[in-house]
Amino acid sequence: MGQDRTTTKRHPIGVFDSGVGGLTVVRALRAALPGEDIIYLGDTARVPYGSKSPRTVERYSLTCQQFLLDRGVKLVLIACNTASANALPALTASSPVPVIGAVEPGAMSALAATRNGHLGVIGTLGTIRSNAYATAIAARDPAVKLTALACPLLVPLAEEGWTDDEIARLVAKRYLAQLFAGDKQIDTLVLGCTHYPLLKNVLADVATELAGQPVAVVDSASAMAEAAKEALGSGANRRTGAGRLDCFATDTSRLDELAPRFLGEALTGFELVDL
Amino acid sequence: MGQDRTTTKRHPIGVFDSGVGGLTVVRALRAALPGEDIIYLGDTARVPYGSKSPRTVERYSLTCQQFLLDRGVKLVLIACNTASANALPALTASSPVPVIGAVEPGAMSALAATRNGHLGVIGTLGTIRSNAYATAIAARDPAVKLTALACPLLVPLAEEGWTDDEIARLVAKRYLAQLFAGDKQIDTLVLGCTHYPLLKNVLADVATELAGQPVAVVDSASAMAEAAKEALGSGANRRTGAGRLDCFATDTSRLDELAPRFLGEALTGFELVDL
Repeated sequence: MGQDRTTTKRHPIGVFDSGVGGLTVVRALRAALPGEDIIYLGDTARVPYGSKSPRTVERYSLTCQQFLLDRGVKLVLIACNTASANALPALTASSPVPVIGAVEPGAMSALAATRNGHLGVIGTLGTIRSNAYATAIAARDPAVKLTALACPLLVPLAEEGWTDDEIARLVAKRYLAQLFAGDKQIDTLVLGCTHYPLLKNVLADVATELAGQPVAVVDSASAMAEAAKEALGSGANRRTGAGRLDCFATDTSRLDELAPRFLGEALTGFELVDL
Repeated sequence: MGQDRTTTKRHPIGVFDSGVGGLTVVRALRAALPGEDIIYLGDTARVPYGSKSPRTVERYSLTCQQFLLDRGVKLVLIACNTASANALPALTASSPVPVIGAVEPGAMSALAATRNGHLGVIGTLGTIRSNAYATAIAARDPAVKLTALACPLLVPLAEEGWTDDEIARLVAKRYLAQLFAGDKQIDTLVLGCTHYPLLKNVLADVATELAGQPVAVVDSASAMAEAAKEALGSGANRRTGAGRLDCFATDTSRLDELAPRFLGEALTGFELVDL
């Protein structure tokens, strides 16, 4: 039955995130697969996942995925790095359709970008504690050196919209100085959280300054969209027109303000659901 | 039956909060009523409440209060300002024992402290949007001028432990400059969130600097403890020894690190509960 649903072109792709940050993945997905219908769920009532324990993150992630499966999605994308890092095995085991997490594609992007094999990854506490990036990278290239750091203040900073000013620069500097203290040769920085692309300019500037050489900054969004294209194969909808985007959230506070920043376009609104 | 339970001295006092910040209230409560047993619940799986809609905050608060009522508490203290501001009527209506919120005591402290009747209040988005402080203050003294501002970054800043440095100072300055732009004569600042006492030094310094005169900084914790003492009356437990403190949380991540900062003493641990 999994196979049947996967190859049903009409069915939508499901994307979930702990909040609105995952709309950066929707943006990349719409660019890569414009004909696809997408159902997005932001668990905004229980956001953030990043500071919570693996057990809680897994429990919440399973209810999010079930919501999407109940709506007949042919593929699930876990936009949230924390959920991907802590709940991918449970989500995969309980889904009849393919499930794509954020960590593996982010790790592949980083390996493609590095010139000297010295990577840095920043993310939430939950993502960094899970060691998911380290595991994914070691499985592909054990010679690569990865230095990881949790940066709890970056999500609220991005949500406050203070993304390119003195405070953002000081916060980025305090965190990244710790990262580069671990490995001065880092030439590629992985943004292991869907909120961080909003701070990309500041993070890239500060990283380059600290490294004394250009630092490549990569995130999971485009790589996840490519992975989705590959997973669908002939099951992809080849319409060239724009597919539908239906957005759901578990709490609607601040959505109108925050969502367009991540999606990069206007939204017709979120439907409120209880999970 | 409410009365019976209130006057049952052996029964504990219940305190709940969206997270660990409410331990500042427990601290004040233990100082004011040392003989009382206390049950504390931090809804750390669903924290923060401050950025969420009134409907979600009310729904979560009711499950927290029910947890305490099921354990036979004789009094409920809502340590969380956001929950107090948005859910006090619903909580009072569904409790057989007295319920004390954070807003009313905080407002009384501010009115007692001000010399010129110009107050400022800072809190979460949910607390400020509710207008609960404005309503409480206007009901007691309509001549008092209140200027309010939401400061979303202060909670993560306090949790990160960056409470007395350059970044804390710049963040405080950016927010408080907006507050004082609304009313240059503010002489009393209400910390309308249980996390903010950790930033009290920086906030007081910056406020005094911006005002060009000493600014009093008040919070709800002591006033809530006084209100509890009054509500219990002869139902208070007059033992002089230290009462029990039992702590529950819906997620245990970071508790060992964060809780002692707010309680001001070591903790024997939290018991994990699902709500």
